[in-house]
Amino acid sequence: MSKTKGGFTLPGESGYEKLTLQMAEKWGADVIRDSDGTVLSDEIVHAGYGIYSTICIIRDHNEWAKKNMDKLQQTFLCTPAAVAEGEELTVSLMESFFAEQFSVNDTEAALKYWEVYDRTVNEKVDREKWSYDKASGTVVLKGITPFHKYTVSFLAYRIWEEISMYNHTTNNWDKEHLMQIDPRYPETQEYMLGWMKNWCETHPDTTVVRFTSMFYNFVWIWGSSARNRQLFSDWGSYDYTVSALALDEFEKRYGYRMEAEDFINKGQLHVTHMPGTQRKADWMEFINDFVISFGKRLIDMVHEHGKKAYVFYDDSWVGVEPYNGRFQEFGFDGLIKCVFSGYEARLCAGVDVPTHELRLHPYLFPVGLGGLPTFAEGGDPTLDAKKYWNSVRRALLRAKIDRIGLGGYLHLVEGYPDFCDYIEKVSDEFRLIRSFHDAGKPYAIKTKVAVLHSWGALRSWTLSGHFHETYMHDLIHVNEALSGLPVDVRFISFEDLRRSACAGQEDAGCGQGADGFGILDDVDVVINAGYAGSAWSGGDSWKDDAVVTLLTRWVHAGGTFLGVNEPSAVEGYDNYFRMAHVLGIDEDKGARVCHGRWSFEAKDEEGLLPPGAAVAAKEHLYLTDGRAQVLMADGNKPLVTVNRFGKGMGIYLASFQVNLENTRMLYQLIRYAGGEGCSGLYMTDNLYTECAYYPESRKLVVINNSDQEQTASVPTEAGTRTVTLAPYDTTFVEL
Amino acid sequence: MSKTKGGFTLPGESGYEKLTLQMAEKWGADVIRDSDGTVLSDEIVHAGYGIYSTICIIRDHNEWAKKNMDKLQQTFLCTPAAVAEGEELTVSLMESFFAEQFSVNDTEAALKYWEVYDRTVNEKVDREKWSYDKASGTVVLKGITPFHKYTVSFLAYRIWEEISMYNHTTNNWDKEHLMQIDPRYPETQEYMLGWMKNWCETHPDTTVVRFTSMFYNFVWIWGSSARNRQLFSDWGSYDYTVSALALDEFEKRYGYRMEAEDFINKGQLHVTHMPGTQRKADWMEFINDFVISFGKRLIDMVHEHGKKAYVFYDDSWVGVEPYNGRFQEFGFDGLIKCVFSGYEARLCAGVDVPTHELRLHPYLFPVGLGGLPTFAEGGDPTLDAKKYWNSVRRALLRAKIDRIGLGGYLHLVEGYPDFCDYIEKVSDEFRLIRSFHDAGKPYAIKTKVAVLHSWGALRSWTLSGHFHETYMHDLIHVNEALSGLPVDVRFISFEDLRRSACAGQEDAGCGQGADGFGILDDVDVVINAGYAGSAWSGGDSWKDDAVVTLLTRWVHAGGTFLGVNEPSAVEGYDNYFRMAHVLGIDEDKGARVCHGRWSFEAKDEEGLLPPGAAVAAKEHLYLTDGRAQVLMADGNKPLVTVNRFGKGMGIYLASFQVNLENTRMLYQLIRYAGGEGCSGLYMTDNLYTECAYYPESRKLVVINNSDQEQTASVPTEAGTRTVTLAPYDTTFVEL
Repeated sequence: MSKTKGGFTLPGESGYEKLTLQMAEKWGADVIRDSDGTVLSDEIVHAGYGIYSTICIIRDHNEWAKKNMDKLQQTFLCTPAAVAEGEELTVSLMESFFAEQFSVNDTEAALKYWEVYDRTVNEKVDREKWSYDKASGTVVLKGITPFHKYTVSFLAYRIWEEISMYNHTTNNWDKEHLMQIDPRYPETQEYMLGWMKNWCETHPDTTVVRFTSMFYNFVWIWGSSARNRQLFSDWGSYDYTVSALALDEFEKRYGYRMEAEDFINKGQLHVTHMPGTQRKADWMEFINDFVISFGKRLIDMVHEHGKKAYVFYDDSWVGVEPYNGRFQEFGFDGLIKCVFSGYEARLCAGVDVPTHELRLHPYLFPVGLGGLPTFAEGGDPTLDAKKYWNSVRRALLRAKIDRIGLGGYLHLVEGYPDFCDYIEKVSDEFRLIRSFHDAGKPYAIKTKVAVLHSWGALRSWTLSGHFHETYMHDLIHVNEALSGLPVDVRFISFEDLRRSACAGQEDAGCGQGADGFGILDDVDVVINAGYAGSAWSGGDSWKDDAVVTLLTRWVHAGGTFLGVNEPSAVEGYDNYFRMAHVLGIDEDKGARVCHGRWSFEAKDEEGLLPPGAAVAAKEHLYLTDGRAQVLMADGNKPLVTVNRFGKGMGIYLASFQVNLENTRMLYQLIRYAGGEGCSGLYMTDNLYTECAYYPESRKLVVINNSDQEQTASVPTEAGTRTVTLAPYDTTFVEL
Repeated sequence: MSKTKGGFTLPGESGYEKLTLQMAEKWGADVIRDSDGTVLSDEIVHAGYGIYSTICIIRDHNEWAKKNMDKLQQTFLCTPAAVAEGEELTVSLMESFFAEQFSVNDTEAALKYWEVYDRTVNEKVDREKWSYDKASGTVVLKGITPFHKYTVSFLAYRIWEEISMYNHTTNNWDKEHLMQIDPRYPETQEYMLGWMKNWCETHPDTTVVRFTSMFYNFVWIWGSSARNRQLFSDWGSYDYTVSALALDEFEKRYGYRMEAEDFINKGQLHVTHMPGTQRKADWMEFINDFVISFGKRLIDMVHEHGKKAYVFYDDSWVGVEPYNGRFQEFGFDGLIKCVFSGYEARLCAGVDVPTHELRLHPYLFPVGLGGLPTFAEGGDPTLDAKKYWNSVRRALLRAKIDRIGLGGYLHLVEGYPDFCDYIEKVSDEFRLIRSFHDAGKPYAIKTKVAVLHSWGALRSWTLSGHFHETYMHDLIHVNEALSGLPVDVRFISFEDLRRSACAGQEDAGCGQGADGFGILDDVDVVINAGYAGSAWSGGDSWKDDAVVTLLTRWVHAGGTFLGVNEPSAVEGYDNYFRMAHVLGIDEDKGARVCHGRWSFEAKDEEGLLPPGAAVAAKEHLYLTDGRAQVLMADGNKPLVTVNRFGKGMGIYLASFQVNLENTRMLYQLIRYAGGEGCSGLYMTDNLYTECAYYPESRKLVVINNSDQEQTASVPTEAGTRTVTLAPYDTTFVEL
């Protein structure tokens, strides 16, 4: 037994028993897993390792599904707006949608939720003006207004489970189309509980049941045209949780009826990147409550069979919500997250659950996510592994992860001894870092950061999906930069601020003194990053003057409001940025096109911006009163500004894109905001490197985030330590 | 007498009598003018020419002004928003403003119009919470909300006439500061009438009195800091027409009171580039009515003395409004416009007044507008004249102008015989073209264009000021391109469409049949060009479904909606562009960030885009239903699209910048929209050239708009004519 064994989950492969056990030893695995659709041989199962088994509770039940097509999962769909050339219009329901994915639900229960809208005036059309023609799959409108445009919103069954559908069409799978059954129905619940019981009884060797994930997939609507196949996709939205039954039950519980339009939203649907509504919040709560209550029955059953239950946080995770304060009600023993980026590692680490496990990339597949070769001719899996580890490692230095592991077909590593050696090194590094965390928390600067957006803690670290799906949002870049910085970070909502804003009010129920800042009491820097109207900037939440006033008072007393792109932006006031008086900068939406502009000279006298830091130019920015110090500019366009306000300040960046230089820039600005200067203890002097210090272990970890050799010096309480690191390498220093 | 004499106004110069008469002969002048502050000698005055004399009725009266400082013109000013750190705040009124331009008006009559606003909640602060401290020039606020921000709006006298101020500070003038007196007061009127009478009596030789212009300058607010001297400037806004007396009179007439906030508008003021309000429209009407009524008394007096009255359409033109249907009430005999661009020539030509006169550039000054030498070492006034003439000439081919002329100091031409020859050529060309117009209208294609924006006909051709002041707006580029095209153009407002939209309504007062399109009956292409929210795009006017429905019906019947940048854009509907169903393209404001995008292949099969045509890329555009034909794209960003809709179409351009290639592109798109193909009669085959044909005279004029020699062929009813033209040259062909 190696001294660093444990915390590693290996994908076993039948027929490669020797390799499985050899790699388990080399990488220090304590657990062997199967994968979707694979079965481990007895030799592996009985080799003394823990055994993870993967189940997906809502698919792989096609036999039952075929007999219960009225209990498949559903969604609302809305036809594209069609212009009426006269007082009649015929609308084909399925013309735009992928016929293999959807089937119209025209049952009586469903039909009562169908809606026709006049989109020219955005009003619902009276029920008596339209009829459904089942034979042709059309809705016929009569007595409508010529040259207005109309949509039909209807319920549809989803007849092909989306992950399965994706793999079929993308990876040319050729298997039976799997369907997803909806546990909302008592019959489905009864079936699932029976199936789960049987499964547990027939899998005595499994120590951990890994759920993939719970019941409802993120929304993923496909279209009929190959020119526009993926009509809509959002990892955080609840479209795929609806059914007439669920809607009826909601009405009983909440006292009002959710309508198709609550989901369809003028045909735009509700993307997580935009602020939600109270009705959406109610629906999410309603679904979450159901997923917990029925999910717990399955988990309890797993526990009754002496097994642990882990949940995989991807795919059918909707309604699970690890960050809404109720997650522990499930009783899960672990959460597993597949990670490309540091923020995903922090997302996993921050969940209140006993075990946090990461599934590292690359997966043991011939071809990677982008379609390029991995374990195949032309691939370099070792370099891939270094780059992925490089992205994730800095987050692991900040927050403890309990386990790591791989997925895929183990036999593929056979021709890649370098890769096997590198994973051994990674595993050892991981276990060493984990041991430092076990001894005590890593050193962090005093300055504490809160990221402010519409979702607050509910969407801690993530926005909605992987980095490559959300790269167009400044905030994911900010989160990724923050994920590895020695800074305490929390995520707060406008509702949190509203509750905190009662300071100074007469209201006795306020719970804090007139001088308090509520949730901001323990915060030094508030970051608000995003484009106007988005959930990340905040949209109409900025119309709440209590929010603006609280932040103003808090900055005046010493806080820093750090805005990126269009922070606090909302129309209807003297400034577009509601915090313009703190930032000293604002954006003109046209009303100020004939106003003068303050001239300025860009200079960074205090060296807040490291060499190579860059910010993309943005049009129509202007200094409000000319006092803001412009640190970086593109000609006469300010890009980075600092504005003193009372004892605090406003910092503005026109955009933020994560890279090593900009990560260092953000760190230096945060330090500066907190009065901790641009350098100090446990901060490397080389921005291509970072470090973490664990006071209890007296261990310093220095990492090279670049593909070049780097030398870095770190001031420590025991003097300066200088190290030289190979590309992507890690060094451990004892103080 | 030369056969082409006439229609030319020469700036005479005392001391250079011989030169004056020599140039008058050479250039075919029939009129000699003085300039602001110059006097013509008797020799010139009595040489048999008509004499123009320039007067500015509201300045040059400093003696009277000093005795009547309470009758100077005024404006509302608003202090920058200041954050209250407690329940008290002291606001210095004049701190941000140019002390030489403004003086606080704290008379009792004015004070009642002062306002304090809480800008955090955008509410007026009760009068009892603030007081004015005359000694310190501050307003003291008490009992206000800590950490809200506040502004003070107050009335100020303008103590330095802005054009005079500009010349002092820019051209280092060193004369007494002129003040402007306000004819709103009966005493001022009495003084002005007396002065005018005396002036007429003492200037018997003057044949034309040129007013510069009437009473109120466009707004031009200067700041105290050299880093931001020009705080606000707008050629079409009415800020400089206010006074307590005017406001009181307005209330009597309109039954409601205009407040400071109606002008201050949250500190943004009202720029012409944004849609106005009904209150602003009322105020403009109120002022226009006054300017006409008192202006007419002065003009009548000029007429009574046997002289003509012309108005210079610049500087103090506010309230004159040549395009609101009342202009002829003044009784002016002519309108003079200083022109840099073709659209300004069309602006002049389109006014309902007997004589239309252009003041050409370059002015006879040592240095031009941009500070570069003209009639001085390093200058090339002949080339300058060619370029300016090149910009203006194509507009003169389309619409008749009666007179041209120069301004400045004639003696400066002495060293520039080339210039004198070139002006002779220009004068002859001008008179020849004018003679063609006299014989009959030039040929135009059948397709008729209407430009749709918030101001409609009121702001025909112009936006607000010269091209270089408005270049950031797509529409000025469109107008400039249109100004020389053989296309009938009119300017219509949303109110025009609203009135037309009653087609098909039961309303008996509608005045048109159910199949009519009202103002659109005679229009083939509607152009809507501008950014969202601007007056040029239309802003909230697009919320009127009657407007959208009328345009939809009209396009379906064969019309073309040609949108540029953010046409018909307004938030709150399924699409951002309200005409997206016609355009086939829309812009995502964030809600569709997770929606799929139609792929497309850009191709221009019908050759609608000439070589060299270019459109700047714009983010976040997407094809709505994939049907639109993409003619030009930047990668996967569509830039120019055509979308068939019924018998008509939607054409979209992501932006429009005027140049020879893009002007030809616009022309070809207009022809295509009207079913007239990409080429045809009286269209040159060389985009660097244009032509005009005058059927009654059988004269074809071909112009070279480029700085290179060009050969062009023109299909005519008498066969194709091919000509070769020197750079910037004009050729006349008889058919």
